[in-house]
Amino acid sequence: MEENFGKMEKSAERFWNRKTASLIPYVPGEQPRGEKLIKLNTNENPYPPAPEVIEAIRKFDYNRLRLYPDPAVTDFRQAVAEYFGIEKSMVFAGNGSDEVLAFAFQAFFEPDGRQVNFPDISYSFYPVYARFYELNWKAIPVDSDYRIVVDDYCRAGHDVVIANPNAPTGIALTLEEIERIVAADCDRLVIIDEAYVDFGAESAAALLSKYDNLLVIQTLSKSRSLAGIRVGFAIGSAALIAGLERVRDSINSYTVDMLAQTAATAAVRSGRYFEKTRQKIMMVREETAERLTGLGLKVLPSSANFIFAAHPQIAGSELALMLRQKGVLVRHFKHERIDQYLRISIGTQEEMNILIDRLAEILDYNRV
Amino acid sequence: MEENFGKMEKSAERFWNRKTASLIPYVPGEQPRGEKLIKLNTNENPYPPAPEVIEAIRKFDYNRLRLYPDPAVTDFRQAVAEYFGIEKSMVFAGNGSDEVLAFAFQAFFEPDGRQVNFPDISYSFYPVYARFYELNWKAIPVDSDYRIVVDDYCRAGHDVVIANPNAPTGIALTLEEIERIVAADCDRLVIIDEAYVDFGAESAAALLSKYDNLLVIQTLSKSRSLAGIRVGFAIGSAALIAGLERVRDSINSYTVDMLAQTAATAAVRSGRYFEKTRQKIMMVREETAERLTGLGLKVLPSSANFIFAAHPQIAGSELALMLRQKGVLVRHFKHERIDQYLRISIGTQEEMNILIDRLAEILDYNRV
Repeated sequence: MEENFGKMEKSAERFWNRKTASLIPYVPGEQPRGEKLIKLNTNENPYPPAPEVIEAIRKFDYNRLRLYPDPAVTDFRQAVAEYFGIEKSMVFAGNGSDEVLAFAFQAFFEPDGRQVNFPDISYSFYPVYARFYELNWKAIPVDSDYRIVVDDYCRAGHDVVIANPNAPTGIALTLEEIERIVAADCDRLVIIDEAYVDFGAESAAALLSKYDNLLVIQTLSKSRSLAGIRVGFAIGSAALIAGLERVRDSINSYTVDMLAQTAATAAVRSGRYFEKTRQKIMMVREETAERLTGLGLKVLPSSANFIFAAHPQIAGSELALMLRQKGVLVRHFKHERIDQYLRISIGTQEEMNILIDRLAEILDYNRV
Repeated sequence: MEENFGKMEKSAERFWNRKTASLIPYVPGEQPRGEKLIKLNTNENPYPPAPEVIEAIRKFDYNRLRLYPDPAVTDFRQAVAEYFGIEKSMVFAGNGSDEVLAFAFQAFFEPDGRQVNFPDISYSFYPVYARFYELNWKAIPVDSDYRIVVDDYCRAGHDVVIANPNAPTGIALTLEEIERIVAADCDRLVIIDEAYVDFGAESAAALLSKYDNLLVIQTLSKSRSLAGIRVGFAIGSAALIAGLERVRDSINSYTVDMLAQTAATAAVRSGRYFEKTRQKIMMVREETAERLTGLGLKVLPSSANFIFAAHPQIAGSELALMLRQKGVLVRHFKHERIDQYLRISIGTQEEMNILIDRLAEILDYNRV
């Protein structure tokens, strides 16, 4: 490359459009390459995918990869439909639940239209989507215990996006509370993002036979141990699903690849392994919460595969740094109101033992 | 589901926003399930992925699928950078080249801004993107021989998207012609979509050291026999790549899954198999073109893995239907100017023999 190429480089930013130049993209948790760290920062499942999933990938005829995948993702959607006892036409499949969320924000919310509400403390991708799609949005404060105030979402006329259980707090609403929100105004859309629902909350899927203004989104990344294959799905009335399909088919007709479809289908059908691993994670979570409390941390009640906890004296960023120096990676968010907190994914029993030991060392050394 | 659910269904379209309701989505070619057809309709490679690719998938530790993939797609981008002799910072990877194109349209073209030009006969996803992202666009007619008129794209001030070779015609521009377009105005962006470039055209990658207003997009779906895993990439100046990353990170941080990254990396490094299979496809294409001409069809000169051909008497839609009844699936586009034509993907020698036989039967029966 000649020397003046460096100059050109910089100035090719002139091709960024107004939106691209003004973006504040989502920052995912660190995915360390090569380093040996105990990874409790991105809510991955500590257990491998179900044996049925691994068997399905192994048995796949890789010569078929020369062909396009089924754009309708038929087998996977059928498996999801059977799991929830609904019709296949009520299931949409995407390349991870982030893609499904992005399609939903694009399909159903009007730029500068009706207000979209979500909690101020929640999945930090929501404000990214809201800005990116130029929506009229408002972040509604959770209360001082980090709980979603249900009444705030029962006002008519505002679309709603809620993570249940919420992230990064882990706190869940009950099915009755979700129903109150959905029923409050049948002419606005309520999206319930259930990325963590299998770790102790109730799915709003149970409400789908009564309400058509409800879209439930789930992922295979967490409870199905398949973050590496990128499959998420939405369930809701067939017309909502058709709206998602219209948007997808204006962007990318084939977002779920063949091996992902194969693995995801097997995962949804692997009931026993799923039950065993999610129970184990919930058990380890409860033990860990108790031990963190014992070390003097404040721990929010979690229905997810992570714990949100704060030490009263040590700043979250500092604690995260000290843990990292001791080989344990946790997530800290530089956000108002939660700056003191750490989000700690639930790993294996052994990993959590190491976390607790390292934390005890740090607290002991800092004499707090 | 209770009876009134059917009524709700229909009306949930009330949640489609203005854009969703007005969409004209892209319609991909048919992916038949179960039926035994000779599939010459979606330009898939008739040969399986390279042995190195299959080996890499087989050797993969599937337990790792519990973890998120590398969001930077480092290994694959490194392989692409080495292949083209450029820096990794000049490579963007996406979930198929359609996703990469969608990101590029979103990142660089201003809604209702500077005019975006592409040929009237070209990849039918371009006008879908242009409408979806609400661009100011114009389809420039190809000439009566279906050739792109280079001078039409050398006017200053208009962004340009060109498929080279063009689809569905298969006709290629030379590197000199592409350079004339790129050099005509360094302040507008030129996107060259090279989905089919490995079958006989010259890549504009050779121009990247001289121009920073050029983005080249390729896919692994065709020449690398990996339509099933969904990987495409863009190469261009680091600032253009950064623009694509900004858009991606506002939508979905992890669009390329672990197995796709693994397969794609191996594919880009499988030079010998790649060379052998693409040469074979070009050879079969030339033979097939000759035989189609012999049957009285008009055949456009193709540098792609398909042939665009028309019978002077039989309408394209009819001919496609008659071929389908005889077990051969080809693609017909209901578009002005090309309604007479069929796009026929190049399969194996044996598949093309069957195509020619069936076509001969049809023409004989219709006495034309």
